Amino acid sequence: MTQAEGVFMSDNTHRTLSHVLRLRRLGIDTYQEPVIYMRNDCHVCRAEGFEAQSRVQVALNNHSIVATLNVVTGELLALDEAGLSEAAWRLLGARAGDAVILSHPPVLESLSLVRAKVYGKRLGGGDMRAIVRDIAAGRYADIHLSAFIAACAGDRLDLAETISLTRAMIDAGERLAWGRSPVVDKHCVGGLPGNRTTLIVVPIVAAFGLTMPKTSSRAITSPAGTADVMETLTEVELDVPAMHRVVEREGGCIVWGGAVRLSPADDILIRVERPLDLDSDGQLVASVLSKKAAAGSSHVVIDIPVGETAKVRSREAAQALSHRLVETGRAIGLTVQTVVTDGTQPVGRGIGPALEARDVLAVLRREADAPADLRERALRLAGAVLEFSPEIAPGEGVRRARDILDDGRAWNKFEAICVAQGGLRVPSVAEHTHAVTATQCGRVTAIDNRRLARVAKLAGAPRAPAAGLELHAPLGTVVKPGQPLFTMHAEAPGELAYALDYIAAQPGIVRVEAEP
Amino acid sequence: MTQAEGVFMSDNTHRTLSHVLRLRRLGIDTYQEPVIYMRNDCHVCRAEGFEAQSRVQVALNNHSIVATLNVVTGELLALDEAGLSEAAWRLLGARAGDAVILSHPPVLESLSLVRAKVYGKRLGGGDMRAIVRDIAAGRYADIHLSAFIAACAGDRLDLAETISLTRAMIDAGERLAWGRSPVVDKHCVGGLPGNRTTLIVVPIVAAFGLTMPKTSSRAITSPAGTADVMETLTEVELDVPAMHRVVEREGGCIVWGGAVRLSPADDILIRVERPLDLDSDGQLVASVLSKKAAAGSSHVVIDIPVGETAKVRSREAAQALSHRLVETGRAIGLTVQTVVTDGTQPVGRGIGPALEARDVLAVLRREADAPADLRERALRLAGAVLEFSPEIAPGEGVRRARDILDDGRAWNKFEAICVAQGGLRVPSVAEHTHAVTATQCGRVTAIDNRRLARVAKLAGAPRAPAAGLELHAPLGTVVKPGQPLFTMHAEAPGELAYALDYIAAQPGIVRVEAEP
Repeated sequence: MTQAEGVFMSDNTHRTLSHVLRLRRLGIDTYQEPVIYMRNDCHVCRAEGFEAQSRVQVALNNHSIVATLNVVTGELLALDEAGLSEAAWRLLGARAGDAVILSHPPVLESLSLVRAKVYGKRLGGGDMRAIVRDIAAGRYADIHLSAFIAACAGDRLDLAETISLTRAMIDAGERLAWGRSPVVDKHCVGGLPGNRTTLIVVPIVAAFGLTMPKTSSRAITSPAGTADVMETLTEVELDVPAMHRVVEREGGCIVWGGAVRLSPADDILIRVERPLDLDSDGQLVASVLSKKAAAGSSHVVIDIPVGETAKVRSREAAQALSHRLVETGRAIGLTVQTVVTDGTQPVGRGIGPALEARDVLAVLRREADAPADLRERALRLAGAVLEFSPEIAPGEGVRRARDILDDGRAWNKFEAICVAQGGLRVPSVAEHTHAVTATQCGRVTAIDNRRLARVAKLAGAPRAPAAGLELHAPLGTVVKPGQPLFTMHAEAPGELAYALDYIAAQPGIVRVEAEP
Repeated sequence: MTQAEGVFMSDNTHRTLSHVLRLRRLGIDTYQEPVIYMRNDCHVCRAEGFEAQSRVQVALNNHSIVATLNVVTGELLALDEAGLSEAAWRLLGARAGDAVILSHPPVLESLSLVRAKVYGKRLGGGDMRAIVRDIAAGRYADIHLSAFIAACAGDRLDLAETISLTRAMIDAGERLAWGRSPVVDKHCVGGLPGNRTTLIVVPIVAAFGLTMPKTSSRAITSPAGTADVMETLTEVELDVPAMHRVVEREGGCIVWGGAVRLSPADDILIRVERPLDLDSDGQLVASVLSKKAAAGSSHVVIDIPVGETAKVRSREAAQALSHRLVETGRAIGLTVQTVVTDGTQPVGRGIGPALEARDVLAVLRREADAPADLRERALRLAGAVLEFSPEIAPGEGVRRARDILDDGRAWNKFEAICVAQGGLRVPSVAEHTHAVTATQCGRVTAIDNRRLARVAKLAGAPRAPAAGLELHAPLGTVVKPGQPLFTMHAEAPGELAYALDYIAAQPGIVRVEAEP
């Protein structure tokens, strides 16, 4: 064996035979999963016994990641070359021609803890730390993440495990500090299209004088996340120093949380949770509270919409979730106030980033046709946040919030926040629209949030910011044949056609029943 | 939009907009997961909103699969081209330049049943059929398979669910018919290197006059599968008509099961089960029995080796597994007899295809130094199979099996089967060997099956058929310094060197302890 073929690396405990290949950029995007491409007949695969789907440790410049192997049988790569997926390329900061050192990854001991959880055992604090540390370091393959998520789904995490998971997730990432108290926050557990109250609550609270540095997510399974909606109005990809400057000046901000690397294990889990679409009280609580604690919040209001097709389907489920949020918050030093709200139908009219932004602007500008339900929800939540202030008596919050909205202070503050984040923009408008109409006389008796959200996604939301739909017929509306129930918006004709196909195949997304 | 860019496909219920790209072969092996590669700026991704990790329906010649999208940002593909992973290429029977039709896949309704199982609900027969049908059709992504496996792991499938899963897996593939009864079979639940009894059991049973059409697997994570060992002696890639001709003439065969497509959902689940390393009695039972039933067997003996480094680690676990195998067999019309055996060390001397074949030949030819443990295990299992015959009284099987082996009938039958399958070959011999010796006096007190298997793989097995190792010192052997513990065999000097490096870094694979 020549020096070029193999090098020995030493550490205190054992030596490992490693190998070198030169990097070639293939430009393959596997989303966030790191993948390495090697010839099946290269000396590394032959000597190490690597095969398709093997996990391979890839080291460059004293930094290493674990990637999944896809072997190449054709002429895509030379025998002494390796390719990386774009995610792996970024993680290693690679350049074409760099020499990477390849070896078997260390055995992932924490997977035995995941297996134990799959078999129904309880996990302790140290167990959760070991699992979350390896997840945050990118050592789990997607199938391992999926097994962990399935093992914790439903009610399989008890309160103590939920607290351990939350702590482990906070410890695995950065934590912001604001040097003042209280630092307030709000969150909605989700499942309700159009529920974009954050963009109204933050300016009300900041105008009052409380500090509210809000980090929001992009859509996970929904047609729009708060960050997606805000992005149609201003910049949201601010780094930590930029975020500090905005909060220093305006008392609040609304930025994308992904840019500040809070609770990175949560981001990795969410990537797999999304296509699995699995609910888990324990993971939901850990995800929400770890992000809030890492963002430096001390007090948080959590909106729990309840409805048959919302994420939380019954009052009892909402109460159980509320209890777990409050208790976990207490354990990690976070004051949590939950607000159970109506989740039977979408909020406002728009579903999709730009369409939801339009609703928000109408409320903030006090336009005559602004959606009243969005306004009332936002006031209720803003009131709850304001009551964290010692200056506001219990029960007084909503009235104070209404004053700030109605006299224009909230709109002025929102404009100022947008300017501080990079300038206020006008949301884009879709080129292609199509009205879906009622086929009979009657009253709207049910709206399926999940299928309606799916329709908006098929139309292109949130990737296409102007895509989505506008709902014209909330619950109780009396309609005639031909009257529009909702209007589809799309940026591409193919997407519009596909959404319409789905609607045709799934009658009753908005249910109209003849009146007796 | 031009005709080349989009076509409408119609069926009874709805229309779907589809798109066409030309195939280019990239030669990327993702193991069995179907992956499609497309430019992110191609018209299909733009019109359909496809992104990295999107699931895409790919149709060619009236056949369609669902593949995971990896988008390509570089020059790997032209704008009107798509690439496929080798697995997807094979599934579609593609040729370079073929035009594939791309669209969104239909919504996978059966995933809601997987979610229900994750949440702890019981699945009925119809639920299992729906899930398994979609798995067999390749509609599940790996993370969906992983969630399903985790939801069923440990003891989360009860007996009724195990039976439903087994039935669903049988129904999802081909089923062979032999027009006679009994049709007997044997299986080992695995984890024990060198346990190559099948090649001895089949000729004994066929020589007696029972029908035993054996389909075997190639190695998945082990240094040799039964099909790999048989392949060093004769052809194993027989199609169903050829298999019928051999069984018609000789009463038995030993062929590779992969060529006959039995229980295809099982093959897909195994691909994800391996790297997860999750044990599940229910899935193991469904996997084994669905393959046997699909192969047309009516009676099967199942070998359950028990040992610390075998798959089943305790007598209690073996008993629970045995009960479930027998009861599930009863429900699907298969008579199951289990045999619990010693799984504390490898069987015979050889580990690796040709070396294991040599052990088998030595037993069949009654050579003086034939491995006694392999012979005795094979006789015990053959005896259990023979007792399925109404002509053999309980307790008489092993004696009758011994007679058939000792008077040369088994060897004659084995030769005849090999001739019928394509001719008897002489296994190849490795060019490079190296003895690994004891470094101290003492007794062999433990052998790590898993690490020993790894050594044989590093030496080149099963890809290099003559590679592997010969074990000279089974448990209890008293050794002196310099006495060989095992001999490495390799076809290439580099592989030999690499296996020896691993051995040097991993002391105690064969543990020698000084006697007091």
